[in-house]
Amino acid sequence: MATRLFSFAGGEQGVWRVERVVAICGETLPQVSRFSMLEGDAGSDAIWRLRGITSNERYVERAEKDALVAKQEGLGRQQASCAALIPIRKSAAWWALTQDERRAIFEAKSEHIQIGMRYLPAIARRLHHCRDLGENEPFDFLTWFEFAPADASAFDKMLAALRATPEWGFVEREVEVRLVME
Amino acid sequence: MATRLFSFAGGEQGVWRVERVVAICGETLPQVSRFSMLEGDAGSDAIWRLRGITSNERYVERAEKDALVAKQEGLGRQQASCAALIPIRKSAAWWALTQDERRAIFEAKSEHIQIGMRYLPAIARRLHHCRDLGENEPFDFLTWFEFAPADASAFDKMLAALRATPEWGFVEREVEVRLVME
Repeated sequence: MATRLFSFAGGEQGVWRVERVVAICGETLPQVSRFSMLEGDAGSDAIWRLRGITSNERYVERAEKDALVAKQEGLGRQQASCAALIPIRKSAAWWALTQDERRAIFEAKSEHIQIGMRYLPAIARRLHHCRDLGENEPFDFLTWFEFAPADASAFDKMLAALRATPEWGFVEREVEVRLVME
Repeated sequence: MATRLFSFAGGEQGVWRVERVVAICGETLPQVSRFSMLEGDAGSDAIWRLRGITSNERYVERAEKDALVAKQEGLGRQQASCAALIPIRKSAAWWALTQDERRAIFEAKSEHIQIGMRYLPAIARRLHHCRDLGENEPFDFLTWFEFAPADASAFDKMLAALRATPEWGFVEREVEVRLVME
């Protein structure tokens, strides 16, 4: 079976150089100089370490999934020497919504999937869930993005578009960790 | 914050006497005489121990949720001296479906919510998720049920109705642990 659990470790080691760690909303993460994405339950010797697990689709419907799969590219592309880790925690009010209410905010009102689609295949992405790893996880999601340096401004536009949506009204903590492969 | 993580421990101790442990599909769990439901990450000294975490609704829509909340009763009722733990694992084919495909099987084709609703308030229930606790969990869900002895045959009918649905075609492991408070 493919690895589902990933660890994201900030510290003084790792193939990624940390360009910046910025709190968008709520508490930041400690500043570090290097970063690693690791398979499994690793990296516990880092200055900070976040864990997330890939899982089944929570909102995406079949037609959207097929469109995404047709357009997206995988992680690890040679030219994708820029990356970002964006840990997010949503509010208790979000998690108390029913499935139809969350889907309505996520896509009908916020076009989360459609916004992401506009930036494919330039921006590759993998979503990791943390909320159900345990009771005391600091974030609900860790999204990992990879892109070429020439697409960094497109990536910034995508983040700005997402952060302007009604869905982001439910985000109570968000940190942006920007990385360069060196 | 209320406890979300629960441990279900089978062994030689616990307030519940084990009536039977039966494999409905796939591998069984070891036979034990006593059972405990514990808050948090406990019970590691038992013969077997399963863990699950309560989480947000995955399929239930607002009108369904309101109808459930209006009719259901909580755990721990004096007369509810019978209980069952039903651990279930679904197939990879289930988890590869998109949200709309899973919802269509779950409710439009299988009436999972409607079947459960018929047995409220007699059968009280709490669902725990395991699939995203880690990579190597033996089950995807642990559902805990409590009911009075007079409602045991209604509980059996409910299980039979659910097991006859198209949704159960995706169940690849199911164990039924039946318990009496003594």
